[in-house]
Amino acid sequence: MASDLIAPSILSADFARLGEEVDNVLAAGADIVHFDVMDNHYVPNLTIGPLVCEALRKHGVTAPIDVHLMVKPVDRIIPDFAAAGATYITFHPEASEHIDRTLQLIRGEGCKSGLVFNPATPLSYLDYVMDKVDMILLMSVNPGFGGQSFIPATFEKLRQARRMIDASGFDIRLEIDGGVKADNIAEVKAAGADTFVSGSGIFGKGKDSDPHRYDSIIREMRAAMAG
Amino acid sequence: MASDLIAPSILSADFARLGEEVDNVLAAGADIVHFDVMDNHYVPNLTIGPLVCEALRKHGVTAPIDVHLMVKPVDRIIPDFAAAGATYITFHPEASEHIDRTLQLIRGEGCKSGLVFNPATPLSYLDYVMDKVDMILLMSVNPGFGGQSFIPATFEKLRQARRMIDASGFDIRLEIDGGVKADNIAEVKAAGADTFVSGSGIFGKGKDSDPHRYDSIIREMRAAMAG
Amino acid sequence: MASDLIAPSILSADFARLGEEVDNVLAAGADIVHFDVMDNHYVPNLTIGPLVCEALRKHGVTAPIDVHLMVKPVDRIIPDFAAAGATYITFHPEASEHIDRTLQLIRGEGCKSGLVFNPATPLSYLDYVMDKVDMILLMSVNPGFGGQSFIPATFEKLRQARRMIDASGFDIRLEIDGGVKADNIAEVKAAGADTFVSGSGIFGKGKDSDPHRYDSIIREMRAAMAG
Amino acid sequence: MASDLIAPSILSADFARLGEEVDNVLAAGADIVHFDVMDNHYVPNLTIGPLVCEALRKHGVTAPIDVHLMVKPVDRIIPDFAAAGATYITFHPEASEHIDRTLQLIRGEGCKSGLVFNPATPLSYLDYVMDKVDMILLMSVNPGFGGQSFIPATFEKLRQARRMIDASGFDIRLEIDGGVKADNIAEVKAAGADTFVSGSGIFGKGKDSDPHRYDSIIREMRAAMAG
Amino acid sequence: MASDLIAPSILSADFARLGEEVDNVLAAGADIVHFDVMDNHYVPNLTIGPLVCEALRKHGVTAPIDVHLMVKPVDRIIPDFAAAGATYITFHPEASEHIDRTLQLIRGEGCKSGLVFNPATPLSYLDYVMDKVDMILLMSVNPGFGGQSFIPATFEKLRQARRMIDASGFDIRLEIDGGVKADNIAEVKAAGADTFVSGSGIFGKGKDSDPHRYDSIIREMRAAMAG
Amino acid sequence: MASDLIAPSILSADFARLGEEVDNVLAAGADIVHFDVMDNHYVPNLTIGPLVCEALRKHGVTAPIDVHLMVKPVDRIIPDFAAAGATYITFHPEASEHIDRTLQLIRGEGCKSGLVFNPATPLSYLDYVMDKVDMILLMSVNPGFGGQSFIPATFEKLRQARRMIDASGFDIRLEIDGGVKADNIAEVKAAGADTFVSGSGIFGKGKDSDPHRYDSIIREMRAAMAG
Repeated sequence: MASDLIAPSILSADFARLGEEVDNVLAAGADIVHFDVMDNHYVPNLTIGPLVCEALRKHGVTAPIDVHLMVKPVDRIIPDFAAAGATYITFHPEASEHIDRTLQLIRGEGCKSGLVFNPATPLSYLDYVMDKVDMILLMSVNPGFGGQSFIPATFEKLRQARRMIDASGFDIRLEIDGGVKADNIAEVKAAGADTFVSGSGIFGKGKDSDPHRYDSIIREMRAAMAG
Repeated sequence: MASDLIAPSILSADFARLGEEVDNVLAAGADIVHFDVMDNHYVPNLTIGPLVCEALRKHGVTAPIDVHLMVKPVDRIIPDFAAAGATYITFHPEASEHIDRTLQLIRGEGCKSGLVFNPATPLSYLDYVMDKVDMILLMSVNPGFGGQSFIPATFEKLRQARRMIDASGFDIRLEIDGGVKADNIAEVKAAGADTFVSGSGIFGKGKDSDPHRYDSIIREMRAAMAG
Repeated sequence: MASDLIAPSILSADFARLGEEVDNVLAAGADIVHFDVMDNHYVPNLTIGPLVCEALRKHGVTAPIDVHLMVKPVDRIIPDFAAAGATYITFHPEASEHIDRTLQLIRGEGCKSGLVFNPATPLSYLDYVMDKVDMILLMSVNPGFGGQSFIPATFEKLRQARRMIDASGFDIRLEIDGGVKADNIAEVKAAGADTFVSGSGIFGKGKDSDPHRYDSIIREMRAAMAG
Repeated sequence: MASDLIAPSILSADFARLGEEVDNVLAAGADIVHFDVMDNHYVPNLTIGPLVCEALRKHGVTAPIDVHLMVKPVDRIIPDFAAAGATYITFHPEASEHIDRTLQLIRGEGCKSGLVFNPATPLSYLDYVMDKVDMILLMSVNPGFGGQSFIPATFEKLRQARRMIDASGFDIRLEIDGGVKADNIAEVKAAGADTFVSGSGIFGKGKDSDPHRYDSIIREMRAAMAG
Repeated sequence: MASDLIAPSILSADFARLGEEVDNVLAAGADIVHFDVMDNHYVPNLTIGPLVCEALRKHGVTAPIDVHLMVKPVDRIIPDFAAAGATYITFHPEASEHIDRTLQLIRGEGCKSGLVFNPATPLSYLDYVMDKVDMILLMSVNPGFGGQSFIPATFEKLRQARRMIDASGFDIRLEIDGGVKADNIAEVKAAGADTFVSGSGIFGKGKDSDPHRYDSIIREMRAAMAG
Repeated sequence: MASDLIAPSILSADFARLGEEVDNVLAAGADIVHFDVMDNHYVPNLTIGPLVCEALRKHGVTAPIDVHLMVKPVDRIIPDFAAAGATYITFHPEASEHIDRTLQLIRGEGCKSGLVFNPATPLSYLDYVMDKVDMILLMSVNPGFGGQSFIPATFEKLRQARRMIDASGFDIRLEIDGGVKADNIAEVKAAGADTFVSGSGIFGKGKDSDPHRYDSIIREMRAAMAG
């Protein structure tokens, strides 16, 4: 089985010294960089785009960058993110008229592709594209809105998605985003997730001046998962 | 008459160490921080949003931050930028159904307000709101597209806008953005501009490791303006 | 089991004396006031908004007001209807990008929340939000278009929704809207509905000058349900 | 010259007994019924549509009904309002791709047509259609937002519109809407207006139980105009 | 069981002499004329509209014309195509807010109605409208994009759709469009399809000057289906 | 001065044998092929796209093809029409957020560029782009709607546009479209037009079987212009 990956969301990092923040969190043991893109249309916020992704690559980040597009429509910006160094590009099925086409576009640009499911979105969008997704991201909060806690119905949805992945025989990551903390990560993992996004849970810790401030929280998450 | 302001556009800075970049360019003599917001709808790019603005304030930037909204619609995001520390907020008249209302909204949030004119946009949008704008920004290239040079028709437009400002009696900045360089800045100033945006013209200079790399280019721009 | 509720749609009432109409229909035994909001975008008609809801409350109506939003998008107007005195607010899942979030918003505003299903809309939108809905409204005609009769496929859909409600263990109303009359209301109830919208079926009866004109039709509907 | 018309906006009336309200205000000397239609898209509110207009006609209102469409797009709903008994139908030029066509559509439906100008909207939209408008409505506040006062730049705009009307030789009403009260109506009239919308200024007066509550305010407005 | 129909897509024909092309392909044994309508919004291309359909009828084409709408929204153009002589009108469920209503509209205009499924679109849109569709069209490539091959997941989807049709008892065609060629048509038929669209597979053959150029390819397709 | 050009609109030709129709009308003396593109969004009709343009070029048409885009937005389809052989590409300023950019895009694709003005659209959109347009098209009817006659206000608008062109010193065609017939073409020319679109005025004449059917009408138009 795939190893568990910790994916800090840089939305909670300090954007004034983003390169250093990402260096520190990766040095502390994080596996991939989660990159939340909001366009003020699909969600009521506007965050960061391809230029910031490209800056991380130029800065020397070699870890996978996992771009979650909370934008609508999605196709035009995909080549920009591929050129900017994205590893994964995931999008919401409601945000594309042509889901299969968009998945093919992402892979055609040399990236790994994925679908993101809002809390209420049914998994039936996966029915005919399991061979075209490298990642399934389940939102356990509503994207683009702050201050929410993990939605309990996500546990059953994780189990269903896990069964679909296992039945498909494909190598697909099952990522979870929203309200994942050291105190529930074991249960989330048990339900089937193998990739864990955490924003303020990681970047909110410690003093800015301490380069090792992220070590303990990531260690704590790994320990919780190990049970 | 108002003094001339140099406004580096941080879109051309290094986003991996943005705080340091902004510190350096201000130390080199820049006056205000120009902040280009694109939403992938009004223009085909997505750049940076309120979180990045807020990070600059937390980092200690006290210079005015001049937010140019290339987004449509505009009203929802204005309070977010005000809360994030914006000084000026300017928008395109075509991007709001209710221009007067949006100008009032910006001032009501405690910011200075302005209208931005695309190269072909007529100045008639100013006819009944001269008392509500603190800045008029004329685009001398098309926003959101790279690699363009200064559009010559802008000189006449600058002179017209300057006459409107002088006739109004209000204290309104006349800003220019696109293709302004040391070799044309004197002519641009002569046509009436008093605030000069420059992106790659400033941030593209020198070696990353040199904290004084922006000194000479800004000195050169000032010298050119002084004639 | 929940009692059966009759919900006259005020779209068929006389808007010149709406307070009196609502008083009369409630006096005649109706249980809740059904309030159809159309925005000329989601459906090709524009009806009534929060001001009219508020006027009913000021007039003294204390019965539940059941607001059916045929608008897209939905989030902005929800606080307005909550402030205007709405009891239930229901919306179409296709009209919100963030269904779970919208349901939370409605409850957060102190109202009861619900989803409305167009005749062809699958029930899978309910899969992960049964704990967040207080009402499920099945349209048995297409909303926003006049002169239609009850669509037969709705009977099976009612039975499916009833099974989902019963299996969930939650206290959720199952409402039906479109072509419900005294001659089919028993069958509709047998299929699982417990809340019955009727517009012209109620308000089209009798002479305007008769304050008791709605008594007989509501008595007839109750009798038909009682079998 | 055309006589001055007072046009109470029924948005401020009591919607629970709208027929009676309109009867009373007309009996008090108002000339035309101003009917504000908002669709929650062009402006952030949703008010009343054709059904309410039709109810007023059925109730017996014979005065002109002056429908101000704050909707976008506009064409689809125009025949509905014509059928519902509208006398005037006015719309915002920004809300129609085909302004000349929409003006023709309104007249083709047997109504009088007009254009509405937001506070910042230039009058150049009138350049080639003076022969097709029966009314020009200048907004002296931003439509769809509450609690605003008369925007001073409107005085000059009224004078410009008046000059255009007089030069055209056509019989065109010049209507003003927003912040018109007894204490400024004389100045507004002097600037060229001949049709005066007032909402809360009229309907906010007196006790609900007094059928003559609107007499004094309308008398006061007429007196102020008479100078 | 229904006979198999070959439906050449005229998008691949020579538009300079379309009448002759259609005559030739029908003379060669094609059964129905497949007519692809794209609006540059639902798909990134713009093709042909009602005027071209009408020209074919005036030219004397009497075979069924099978109009596939790749447009959004769909309702406004349906009466135009009905008047222009369309036999079938099919649309994508994502392109209509009111699917049941649109199906009724098509039949009400005297045409046969159908739903089209993009490669990733679930079949659940059919759950409550099997009695209202005359054709189900499964896309085996993404519509509006060139140079694609048959998507394998379509085989299972064809089998599911075939089972739904057989279980319904209704007379519904199961059409397939995209990458169907003589070398896979037998397998596609075995999976349940009975109507086969082919564009460049038919019109790309032979020399323009040969009126019999389409005979052999259609014969070959029929032979392959016969096994 | 530029010679006068007659530009038959092929929307009125027989689409079943379009190549032959265009050959005939050019042989009869027409100068350029006017190609009306409608997308069912900017105007309520959908006509023909790049494939039809390309077919005319493959058929051997060498005359200029003058593509009038009644689509919104416009940028995406411009390279398609350039590749399909368009000579001129004109668009409505309201249909592009970035008018200057779109004009540059058209020229960058190797075509001649132009702006189209609806009957009520002010000419102020030309203020800063006279150096970037090769054609100004004034609509003398509303585009996309049938059965209209020449709008008289267009005469004055033609004179204004002519003065702008002459003052600019640039070589810009002034085209007129809508209700131009032999009996008013002299007056239209006198007002400043030099390029005359005619649809049913040309293609509606004579018997289909007569290859010379267009000779007399074009001769008549030329004679009328010659006075």
